[in-house]
Amino acid sequence: MMDRSDAQGEGSADLLKTINSPDDLKRLSAEQLEELAQEIREFVISTVSLTGGHLAPCLGVVELTLAIHSTFSAPEDRIVWDVGHQAYVHKILTGRRERFSTLRQYGGISGFPRISESEYDTFGVGHASTAISAALGFATARDLKDERRHVVAVVGDGALTGGIAFEGLNNAGASRRNLIVVLNDNRMSISPNVGALSNYLTQIITNPLYNRIKNDLWALTGKLPRGASKVRRIIHRIEESLKGLVVPGSLFERLGFRYFGPVDGHHISRLLNIFREIRKLNGPILVHVVTKKGKGYPLAEKNATKFHGLGSFCRETGTTAIKRAPSYTEIFGKALVELAEKDERIVGITAAMADGTGLVHLEKRFPDRFFDVGIAEPHAVTFAAGLALEGFRPVVAIYSTFLQRAFDQVIHDVALQNLPVVFALDRGGLVGEDGPTHHGCFDLSYLRFIPNLVVMVPKDENELRDMLFTALKHDGPVAFRYPRGESMGLPLRKTFRTIPIGKSETIIEGKDALFLGVGDGVDMAMRTAGRLAMKGISAGVINARFVRPIDREMVESAARSVPYLFTFENNTVIGGFGSGVGEILSEMQGLRITFRRLGIPDRFVAHGSKQDLFRDIELDVDSLVRRVEDIIGGDGRVNTGRQKIRSKRKKQDSR
Amino acid sequence: MMDRSDAQGEGSADLLKTINSPDDLKRLSAEQLEELAQEIREFVISTVSLTGGHLAPCLGVVELTLAIHSTFSAPEDRIVWDVGHQAYVHKILTGRRERFSTLRQYGGISGFPRISESEYDTFGVGHASTAISAALGFATARDLKDERRHVVAVVGDGALTGGIAFEGLNNAGASRRNLIVVLNDNRMSISPNVGALSNYLTQIITNPLYNRIKNDLWALTGKLPRGASKVRRIIHRIEESLKGLVVPGSLFERLGFRYFGPVDGHHISRLLNIFREIRKLNGPILVHVVTKKGKGYPLAEKNATKFHGLGSFCRETGTTAIKRAPSYTEIFGKALVELAEKDERIVGITAAMADGTGLVHLEKRFPDRFFDVGIAEPHAVTFAAGLALEGFRPVVAIYSTFLQRAFDQVIHDVALQNLPVVFALDRGGLVGEDGPTHHGCFDLSYLRFIPNLVVMVPKDENELRDMLFTALKHDGPVAFRYPRGESMGLPLRKTFRTIPIGKSETIIEGKDALFLGVGDGVDMAMRTAGRLAMKGISAGVINARFVRPIDREMVESAARSVPYLFTFENNTVIGGFGSGVGEILSEMQGLRITFRRLGIPDRFVAHGSKQDLFRDIELDVDSLVRRVEDIIGGDGRVNTGRQKIRSKRKKQDSR
Repeated sequence: MMDRSDAQGEGSADLLKTINSPDDLKRLSAEQLEELAQEIREFVISTVSLTGGHLAPCLGVVELTLAIHSTFSAPEDRIVWDVGHQAYVHKILTGRRERFSTLRQYGGISGFPRISESEYDTFGVGHASTAISAALGFATARDLKDERRHVVAVVGDGALTGGIAFEGLNNAGASRRNLIVVLNDNRMSISPNVGALSNYLTQIITNPLYNRIKNDLWALTGKLPRGASKVRRIIHRIEESLKGLVVPGSLFERLGFRYFGPVDGHHISRLLNIFREIRKLNGPILVHVVTKKGKGYPLAEKNATKFHGLGSFCRETGTTAIKRAPSYTEIFGKALVELAEKDERIVGITAAMADGTGLVHLEKRFPDRFFDVGIAEPHAVTFAAGLALEGFRPVVAIYSTFLQRAFDQVIHDVALQNLPVVFALDRGGLVGEDGPTHHGCFDLSYLRFIPNLVVMVPKDENELRDMLFTALKHDGPVAFRYPRGESMGLPLRKTFRTIPIGKSETIIEGKDALFLGVGDGVDMAMRTAGRLAMKGISAGVINARFVRPIDREMVESAARSVPYLFTFENNTVIGGFGSGVGEILSEMQGLRITFRRLGIPDRFVAHGSKQDLFRDIELDVDSLVRRVEDIIGGDGRVNTGRQKIRSKRKKQDSR
Repeated sequence: MMDRSDAQGEGSADLLKTINSPDDLKRLSAEQLEELAQEIREFVISTVSLTGGHLAPCLGVVELTLAIHSTFSAPEDRIVWDVGHQAYVHKILTGRRERFSTLRQYGGISGFPRISESEYDTFGVGHASTAISAALGFATARDLKDERRHVVAVVGDGALTGGIAFEGLNNAGASRRNLIVVLNDNRMSISPNVGALSNYLTQIITNPLYNRIKNDLWALTGKLPRGASKVRRIIHRIEESLKGLVVPGSLFERLGFRYFGPVDGHHISRLLNIFREIRKLNGPILVHVVTKKGKGYPLAEKNATKFHGLGSFCRETGTTAIKRAPSYTEIFGKALVELAEKDERIVGITAAMADGTGLVHLEKRFPDRFFDVGIAEPHAVTFAAGLALEGFRPVVAIYSTFLQRAFDQVIHDVALQNLPVVFALDRGGLVGEDGPTHHGCFDLSYLRFIPNLVVMVPKDENELRDMLFTALKHDGPVAFRYPRGESMGLPLRKTFRTIPIGKSETIIEGKDALFLGVGDGVDMAMRTAGRLAMKGISAGVINARFVRPIDREMVESAARSVPYLFTFENNTVIGGFGSGVGEILSEMQGLRITFRRLGIPDRFVAHGSKQDLFRDIELDVDSLVRRVEDIIGGDGRVNTGRQKIRSKRKKQDSR
């Protein structure tokens, strides 16, 4: 419990230290909350500059989060954060201030709300647009149990373009249940927001006539004596009617919500006023709050896209660590422009991720052939199908984890019609600090069984370029996926090569064992083979390249040529590349080999650095060497290095 | 080419015979089109009463389809049908009249638009809500190529509740491209439509003030002399302004569409007038057409849900063929009510399929614990997650193929949080006449790799009941799937049994081969084993029950006990049950068995009766017996019946 005088006694910089739960906020005045907001901002900037994370979204919601937690009573009231990367302030206010420095680190607190982390985190999240649906679940449960509490969903304007958000609004609006949607309107998804809804929100905010009337009414209300509640109600009604006629909110009103706003999301007392008012009201309510992404940190205000999510950075200059090699994203984005120069059928589609996917290069060079559809992956894919049917060659660039959103569209709209749509999946495999909501662990498994689709995985950046080239020449749907982060740092070949569909390549010959890898699995395999070679084990490495169709001839020949076969992939071991190899092996007769699938284990993987995570799941080179040796050394069929070492040791010992 | 005098000469009943392409419509007067509408209605009813199919949706759009094809010039203009089951009239008018009697039959025309079937079918479909996105793709391609044509998407009000439809509207509205959305508003999805948007449409249609003004304006326009185009424009403008103020369309206007309507969708000359007008306009346009599902066939008008889609029926009485056994749907729906009686935490969620999923029983018994969210599968799943977090036990009943829409929500909102949501997947495996858009071929593959999830498949209706019971007791997410249509016709056990998670059951012992089956695969296996037994081959059958986790102990023991192992499943052979068994086998050492996965081959399967399709993919019993015999007989390890028969024959020959 906080003692206000104490807090003040310790000086203003220490207000934050006294906040251990949202209850502690309830004793602060609006002025103190404003002071606290500055402390929090400072705390977030200094921490995230070290840990990396989603900075700009959090800076935008400092006052909003304070106002919500001052007005409502979490955890009894349910606060549901959409996307969740803007929930840092919420975390700091709900007992995790001291652990905040462990943000996004292995074993530390998550960068997103997680139900296992705190009772204040009501709904785990990472993908956008789910909060209204989840909140309606909470509200419905409350009513079925005849309980009383507030349910508040905080949703960004970017997330509102996602179809499920609309499905949630449509159902919540009709339900008439008590449910508050706070629309955190910062005019951005990750990129500046797009779509008609976004234009509409701009219209609301900038409409001068409406704003003039609204301001007059605010002014009038302010001049009324306390207790003039009837007059206040009448003014409120006038305001409501005007809103419907003049402009704003009517879209939400049509969907069954009472609309309030727009409110300045950095004006704490206004926020407190409005939340205190709507707390008393029934039915579905939407509060439109206007915030500035990156607020209070000039570098982030100026470049909210860069500061949306980033690694550690210098807080004075905003400089991030220099990368040794360009990212796969960068390589892909530039290769696409090179190819688009020569083929005007090529167009690019992103779902609010022009920077994240590298399509920003296409946008700059060919703005007419670049489409940002907002957070709307299902639409992105079906839109691409339409373009493909008219002779274009759409490249849909989406993160592996987000393509899960458009799984049905890939099957029903693209693959079933055998359309030449190219899916470029960034962030395949473990992504690191963003954790389980963002890992791309499943794509090889969820794409491998889709008829007509070709699924490729490049082992390095040159192969990525060649695969893009190959995909654009192929007369049917193709997906390829590549990992997050830096490429191998190879010199780029100037020309593009066509890769024969379904053909692998041998990288290292081996006689004791063969490692079949795809993507970064090839690098894992090569490092492991290198280490084993030093121990006298001859392990060959094959870059399988294709997960669909798998090079069956290669697999059959490999299985007949060595006693040990391993697959290496940065994907779940269930249903992916290794499983496809297993399908082939399991139907071969008279085989006498030992086979193991090395990949992401069959569980959700936590957050942390890639290095920590790979160690955790035993896909780091040390573990891989040990795992392979345990099997090869186990049955004496190969004279392993371990045996050699053992006998060597014995010799040394006997000296 | 049609000669109008000829057509009239042959009598009114023969107008339809003269229509071989939409061009032929352009010579008909409004009166003749009305006559034609009646002929088409008669033709559709008499054909569908024999073939089965989606009757009510088609009867509702006869005039609308005629008006569209009379006004626009397909295939140059692109007409995109959403869902597609309302496209029968379109098919009849676009050169498929004579083949219409082959509707939905093996080798016949599809019940849905298919690009491979006709150049008039612009976009293949079966799942709802995709048309606007695809149409925006067409419109964008047109503009990029600097071509001129109309693009028209016809979308039902039910489909408009699906998130991707909103994503499409949001992007189309902002694009400013020329694009016409025809909203076919019949107040229904398959069940009566739900949600705030639906309420809003009702409001538009029934608002008396607006309608009075609108009617006055129509009347006024009608009285103007030809050529008074300026006055007409002014009136039009007045009408437009009034609409914005008074009520309707503003939701769509906010999304960047010009709104026209509501128009009586059975009044051909009004439809023609409005389409001729909007043809001249630029930008995104939405025409709101009000139709009656089942129009002109009183039985269907009265019970549009029954006549939405059905098998062959008696056109006088509406009676459908009597089923020998209750459907799995029925068994599931009633079992759920039985269990809900005893556990008030149980709630049911459907996405516009109360009848199709059997949840209608829950709706009748516990209306407060039943939720129809409209066509909005992603929302359904996330909503369920919210309910589960508050202590409820939601049962989400969705067709296998439609759960693809919520794939990400299953992973990200339910499985990652390990929430006790039960997924009851109807229509698993091949569904028959609805074809590739509706087959549930992939669920075992797309669910098998999701951590925390349990995946079960019942072999018969008693096991279905027990699996529902087991799922509701399990403290984590569970999915089970069952086939379309009749159950096995067994007497139902009164009590429910808990099935131990991950445990199989042996049904028949066998020494030559073992058949591991799941779901209807078990029945396939038993029939095959029975036929083989008559030939002297002893094949055992194991009901594996679980696809995740697979009973590893059973698989390992089976693989060591017989020389031949087969898996049987009504799911793709890639990544599903057989693949999971293959994963286990491929990592066993010293095995000397022959293994084959029997299931749906790795391609999209056509439409037709289940019988025809199973024969086509060699999963009928004759084919299965032959396929198994080919393998078992091939290497002489088992003294097969074929060998016995052969030796028997030799004896006979030598006599």
